[in-house]
Amino acid sequence: MRTSIATVSLSGSLTEKLTAAARAGFDGVEIFENDLLASTLTPEEIRARCADLGLTVELFQPLRDIEAVPEEVFARNLRRARHKCELTRRLGAGTVLVCSSVSPQAVNDDALAAEQLSRLADTARDCGVRVAYEALAWGRHVSTYDHAWRIVASAGHPALGTCLDSFHILSRSDDPKDLEGIEDIPGEKIFFLQLADAPLLAMDVLQWSRHYRCFPGQGGFDLAGLLRHVLSTGYDGPLSLEVFNDVFRQAEAAPTAVDARRSLLVLQESVGRARLPAPVIPTGVAFAELVTPDAGPLTALLGALGFTRAARHRRKPVTLWEQGDARILVDTGPAVRRDGTRLAAIGLESPDPAGAARRAEALLAPVLPRRRTPGDTPQDAVAAPDGTELFLCATGSRGLPDWRADFEDTGREPEPAHLSGIDHLALTQPWHHFDEAALFHRGVLGLRAQESVDLADPYGLLRSRVVTNPDGSVRIALTVGAAPTDDTVHAQHIALATGDVVASARRFREAGGTLLPVPANYYDDLAARFEFADGELETYRDLGILYDRDAHGAFRHCYTRTVGRVFFELVQRDDGYRGYGAANAPVRLAAQHTVRALTDG
Amino acid sequence: MRTSIATVSLSGSLTEKLTAAARAGFDGVEIFENDLLASTLTPEEIRARCADLGLTVELFQPLRDIEAVPEEVFARNLRRARHKCELTRRLGAGTVLVCSSVSPQAVNDDALAAEQLSRLADTARDCGVRVAYEALAWGRHVSTYDHAWRIVASAGHPALGTCLDSFHILSRSDDPKDLEGIEDIPGEKIFFLQLADAPLLAMDVLQWSRHYRCFPGQGGFDLAGLLRHVLSTGYDGPLSLEVFNDVFRQAEAAPTAVDARRSLLVLQESVGRARLPAPVIPTGVAFAELVTPDAGPLTALLGALGFTRAARHRRKPVTLWEQGDARILVDTGPAVRRDGTRLAAIGLESPDPAGAARRAEALLAPVLPRRRTPGDTPQDAVAAPDGTELFLCATGSRGLPDWRADFEDTGREPEPAHLSGIDHLALTQPWHHFDEAALFHRGVLGLRAQESVDLADPYGLLRSRVVTNPDGSVRIALTVGAAPTDDTVHAQHIALATGDVVASARRFREAGGTLLPVPANYYDDLAARFEFADGELETYRDLGILYDRDAHGAFRHCYTRTVGRVFFELVQRDDGYRGYGAANAPVRLAAQHTVRALTDG
Repeated sequence: MRTSIATVSLSGSLTEKLTAAARAGFDGVEIFENDLLASTLTPEEIRARCADLGLTVELFQPLRDIEAVPEEVFARNLRRARHKCELTRRLGAGTVLVCSSVSPQAVNDDALAAEQLSRLADTARDCGVRVAYEALAWGRHVSTYDHAWRIVASAGHPALGTCLDSFHILSRSDDPKDLEGIEDIPGEKIFFLQLADAPLLAMDVLQWSRHYRCFPGQGGFDLAGLLRHVLSTGYDGPLSLEVFNDVFRQAEAAPTAVDARRSLLVLQESVGRARLPAPVIPTGVAFAELVTPDAGPLTALLGALGFTRAARHRRKPVTLWEQGDARILVDTGPAVRRDGTRLAAIGLESPDPAGAARRAEALLAPVLPRRRTPGDTPQDAVAAPDGTELFLCATGSRGLPDWRADFEDTGREPEPAHLSGIDHLALTQPWHHFDEAALFHRGVLGLRAQESVDLADPYGLLRSRVVTNPDGSVRIALTVGAAPTDDTVHAQHIALATGDVVASARRFREAGGTLLPVPANYYDDLAARFEFADGELETYRDLGILYDRDAHGAFRHCYTRTVGRVFFELVQRDDGYRGYGAANAPVRLAAQHTVRALTDG
Repeated sequence: MRTSIATVSLSGSLTEKLTAAARAGFDGVEIFENDLLASTLTPEEIRARCADLGLTVELFQPLRDIEAVPEEVFARNLRRARHKCELTRRLGAGTVLVCSSVSPQAVNDDALAAEQLSRLADTARDCGVRVAYEALAWGRHVSTYDHAWRIVASAGHPALGTCLDSFHILSRSDDPKDLEGIEDIPGEKIFFLQLADAPLLAMDVLQWSRHYRCFPGQGGFDLAGLLRHVLSTGYDGPLSLEVFNDVFRQAEAAPTAVDARRSLLVLQESVGRARLPAPVIPTGVAFAELVTPDAGPLTALLGALGFTRAARHRRKPVTLWEQGDARILVDTGPAVRRDGTRLAAIGLESPDPAGAARRAEALLAPVLPRRRTPGDTPQDAVAAPDGTELFLCATGSRGLPDWRADFEDTGREPEPAHLSGIDHLALTQPWHHFDEAALFHRGVLGLRAQESVDLADPYGLLRSRVVTNPDGSVRIALTVGAAPTDDTVHAQHIALATGDVVASARRFREAGGTLLPVPANYYDDLAARFEFADGELETYRDLGILYDRDAHGAFRHCYTRTVGRVFFELVQRDDGYRGYGAANAPVRLAAQHTVRALTDG
């Protein structure tokens, strides 16, 4: 199927938009009227630019407030419409989009609407183009797809068809029954299909549409269900994205276009119209890699946490620290940026690294060189939208090269492990690409995305969304601040699993580690909310252990101090607790601010 | 009346919040539970800190999901509540807030609710505090103020009263009739009054409350109407602001607290409970002052626009340029910042400069020194929230000192004027203080604020709101970008009125000026939308004149190139056109980006 994107979905000048769409692999574009008006190129030059970029111009949009008006008003409207049909022809677009009227001059008269749309279609045909009539969800008299189609059908004009827009349809009803009528429309009378998703919000539909649309798979609409109905009619036009929101308007066009195209590929796959390499779901976390300009503080921290310096990379300044199944790489090599210690890469256990990389590449993820340095074991890796390198690798899997082959054992005897593995990883996301990140992890890696939650930080609200594999052995929390300048959100963390957080915290402290202090008021509140065994709460208070409980079980967790942008969490999950202690996040975030203020001051 | 603010309304640590509230002149605070939990201070220390700052602790909040539950659940709830009542006492707050339950365990049984709230009030009384019961707009069974009051009344407990919250009341109904019931509540049973405004949005009320509350006078609610009802009951508790939104969470606490307190002062004045110096509404624009590190480009621009270098400041490097009633000061003095040419000050014609300054000071506007340099004529001036200096001055008014007394005529003969004055000024606002700016201009200067409009820029959405005096001789457009990093919004401009924009534009061009080029596609669209006399459109196209029309008349305008952060607009308003050409803003903004890209590239 052809894919297309409306220029209004991307930021910048028209030529920036066209270039970004072409580079992301779209076949065509819808040209938005305001982009044309603001362009210094003539319509013919725009057409030529598109041709040079390998893009077809699928649609010119929108023509508004045309139909079902008194004759003298219609005469003026038709004059305006003739000009737009002519423009459509000059652009080389076969179709012009007409939205159902929102004008107070429009009357509720389907016969009049059909008659005037028919005359509009005559004009369009004279220009060699056709008219796609679409019901806006807030149209004055016509606001549903089936109503628009009845008018189109009764007009019976060969140059008049309908345009279906998933937002306008699904924002009015999410009842699958209401979609069945789509199949009554002959495919050749569906002149165009615009796709947009949106989070499920209870709000004025016009504001919802203007500020909250998102790409398919990033919201709550059942786009696959709608698309199946449309395809069953025999529709053979493009799948075109018409998505705008406050974030995209400011984001750079190129990554937005890639995100857009990826969302369409995943949607096409879900309805059996794109053949992509099958997802290879990661089966665990092989390692987390920290880069640092100064290994000292991390070495002290990992030592106090009970990690053993198990191995050294044969050719690079990278050390492997191990404890149970938790493996941390500390890299002091040339890749280190000036922003200090950070979580730069994650090793994901993959049953088929090459297959996983093929899928990633098909879904437009930047695939990284398999071999960085001569002599390295080749490793498949891709870059996530936040720049984190995701290594697709195997640890002691039969028949697959082991990433540890590049490491030489130090021969050190490991301490008895009290930490069993990595419970979860938390990564901060670039502000403009939070929804993209969740879709990336779902589409590319086959992880599941949970609902996003708001966390109150003293200096702004954070949003967090967790992606996991089915058995929970891979859990990544994606976090974003409320605004691009919010520098409170740059902390990343590694949560380490323990069967006894009290023992682990004590051991850490005895080894010289410092735990994040938690205010006494928090424990007074815990005492009021839960019942604890004698002395239990005093222990938590002493160590700075936070407590949460869900329908399944309990969660106890505490935090180390932050090194650069990274800190560690020790977590004990009991009886199948499923969360991440979100209720405690405001207290933890405030405590981190307090420590920072004391340190900075 | 006492004024108070909830700590949740301000960002930062609890001590930062308390300090900001005290500095802005609040009498008291509500302590929000999460702020207490996250604080390293004990309740007694918080109480002492407040006392040191001259703040009373008015309320501890909130206690949730207490009432109308099965007995065994209530026993647990009461245990938790006892702890919170004790905390309230330790904080030195007389009152604890209880919100109506949202718990699925709550039943719809007013008698049970009253009985359990009565037992809660017993507990509170034992701790020496009282309970204020408030209906949340989304409460499970109790969601209106009169329902909450009926339960409180039937409980008949001296330590149980109600709390009225303007958001919860007005978000459910804006019918003045629905507010009349407030007067049936005895004033002494209204234990607390929380005030918040909000823009009128059709959306889920919980999301509306969480993300969009604003200070009184910054939204669409009739807070004065509500407050009059409450005061008529004899209520003598504090007016307390409980306002949170995504912007405030990130803004600095100190300016937010000042904005908050100013909003209460204006509200108190509107109900006759604050005596402030009367507003002195400006009657015109005396001058606009540009500061620049290099007067060259501005001199060329003003010369081409037909301004005459009329006078020089006697002691400072400031030049006065005049044409008709338009006066521009060009300042190359030491106040110049590194960010280049910008609009730094506005002279507002004031019939009573000293009175205007007294009102500004009473409303917490930073009043600037009356005399900057020895020998200067004293001038009243205040700083607007965006840092612009507003001079309250007089040009040739009998009995008032003339600001031009500090200037010495150059003796130059003015050119025949084709520009008559300053039509409007456009100022960009700091991201976190857009609503504050509109309230400032309304409250401090007595200007009227129009509705805000969205303008599409190629790199983000702008919001713009105009404040004017009654006869339109002062018009200031306040504009803000969609996010703090948006550097496309820093342009400010001065719009100059002309009776013949075509002649003025030609004259400017003949004098060597360069007008902003407007794409040909824009004129093709104009031709389709409006009828023009022969050759008219060709003239506009040639000069880059934009065209708009409203119900009253026509608007023609064009733009100079930008110098530093400033550009000029030439505008011709015919037949009472009231707008600012907002429909043309996307084309203008895109054209400015194009010019910048060409210049930078």
